[in-house]
Amino acid sequence: MIGPDRISLNTATLRQQWSLAECIEGCARHGFGGIAPWRDKLHEMGVDAAARAIREAGLAVSGLCRGGWFTAEGSLTQAVIDDNRRAVDEAVAIGAECLVFVVGGLPNGSRDMPAARALVEDGLARTLDHARAVGMKLAIEPLHPMYAADRACVNTTRQALDICDRLGPGIGVALDVYHIWWDPEIEAQIVRAGKDRIMAFHVCDWLVPTKDMLTDRGMMGDGVIDIPHLRHAVEASGFGGLIEVEIFSADNWWKRDADEVVRTVADRVARFC
Amino acid sequence: MIGPDRISLNTATLRQQWSLAECIEGCARHGFGGIAPWRDKLHEMGVDAAARAIREAGLAVSGLCRGGWFTAEGSLTQAVIDDNRRAVDEAVAIGAECLVFVVGGLPNGSRDMPAARALVEDGLARTLDHARAVGMKLAIEPLHPMYAADRACVNTTRQALDICDRLGPGIGVALDVYHIWWDPEIEAQIVRAGKDRIMAFHVCDWLVPTKDMLTDRGMMGDGVIDIPHLRHAVEASGFGGLIEVEIFSADNWWKRDADEVVRTVADRVARFC
Repeated sequence: MIGPDRISLNTATLRQQWSLAECIEGCARHGFGGIAPWRDKLHEMGVDAAARAIREAGLAVSGLCRGGWFTAEGSLTQAVIDDNRRAVDEAVAIGAECLVFVVGGLPNGSRDMPAARALVEDGLARTLDHARAVGMKLAIEPLHPMYAADRACVNTTRQALDICDRLGPGIGVALDVYHIWWDPEIEAQIVRAGKDRIMAFHVCDWLVPTKDMLTDRGMMGDGVIDIPHLRHAVEASGFGGLIEVEIFSADNWWKRDADEVVRTVADRVARFC
Repeated sequence: MIGPDRISLNTATLRQQWSLAECIEGCARHGFGGIAPWRDKLHEMGVDAAARAIREAGLAVSGLCRGGWFTAEGSLTQAVIDDNRRAVDEAVAIGAECLVFVVGGLPNGSRDMPAARALVEDGLARTLDHARAVGMKLAIEPLHPMYAADRACVNTTRQALDICDRLGPGIGVALDVYHIWWDPEIEAQIVRAGKDRIMAFHVCDWLVPTKDMLTDRGMMGDGVIDIPHLRHAVEASGFGGLIEVEIFSADNWWKRDADEVVRTVADRVARFC
């Protein structure tokens, strides 16, 4: 049975309820092993204060969400490059295992997917130079193909690993069961990724029906994903990190009492992961 | 420029407005080259009457939608096998180029994707025996991964072609831009498929944002899919069939005057396909 010390709470799970300070305190109180902040909450609290509070609470940081959005301005502007460098530095400051990337979708008005993907790879390469210099790992999160247009044009684990192959050491993948569960070749790609390139493992569940493409993700056990199968696969490949719980749920979990959500997370990880 | 004689109207595009008889008459009146009926509308009209009307209107039939749903009852029951045999026979009766398959998702209550996929392949194999005997081609339609749970667990062109490789001649793919546009390896898979296995080519568009996962598909030109790129790819592989227009659009095109929709389809295929 997976105890709470093996769980990391992604702050998106309590986006509407708790500040980062409250998340840190809550994780510690519930005996969680780690936390994974989003940058908006991190900035709100202040990077230094957050780093100190996380350290004092004895929490690991399974990842910082997120770098990326390389396509936001249609080309790789200095602003985009600089923002990603800052994200790397913030990940270092809070002692994150990795900086997780949501790479960005098609630029506004574009239908040119190959161009968007080339731009993303270029942005990752430039961020990687800095990340290597400061010792931070970069984790591409392949996003479900339904986000290809508007959030991330890296949509399969194979595609992400192809990029990693080309860019070399220091870059790998963050695998979220929500994005990868459907993939008929996920097992083979997890083997291919290997220990060094599986940098994070995120869980939630796929609800049937899914009523909203972004904010209707399920609590583990409420959907159809065979989470233990995927967890065993990443662990068989050598992944030994925390199980990070990230649930976007506007109509359900974001409306509940935060401590109830945290207790439910612990219970469901134990029973369904 | 692609004229209306190169277009086939999938009856789902006018699901709320026209019966199959009206679709046949409308296609002929607007100079369309073909039609692709769904089975519910076909049964409503009667297979023999429909076959006769389509022939008399001089329309080709780019496909019959749909066989499949092999997972509907959790195992390959005789009812499921028989329904697929009937679908093959109906496709023969109306002179369809192929029978298009929506293979089915996870059985109710199941999280076992490999089992669902094995069941689907078994069902396709058994249907193929009959199809070969009566000379009907089977076209697996890989559905967008967001339908993996509840509609079709064949979700990439690679996966569909792997099945085709194993099952041999007489089975191929129906490629709908809506389902495949995001795929980073679609060009290579289209080459791999080749002339004999690309049995249908469907168009619509991916809207940003997409408000409903099933019924918010766009008219060509209103979304982000580079349709000409995909059409050129299938044609370079030898596909010479009609361009089939299939748009599920509950809040927009299903509410408009049918002739306006048909005129818009002709205009948009000419300008955006």
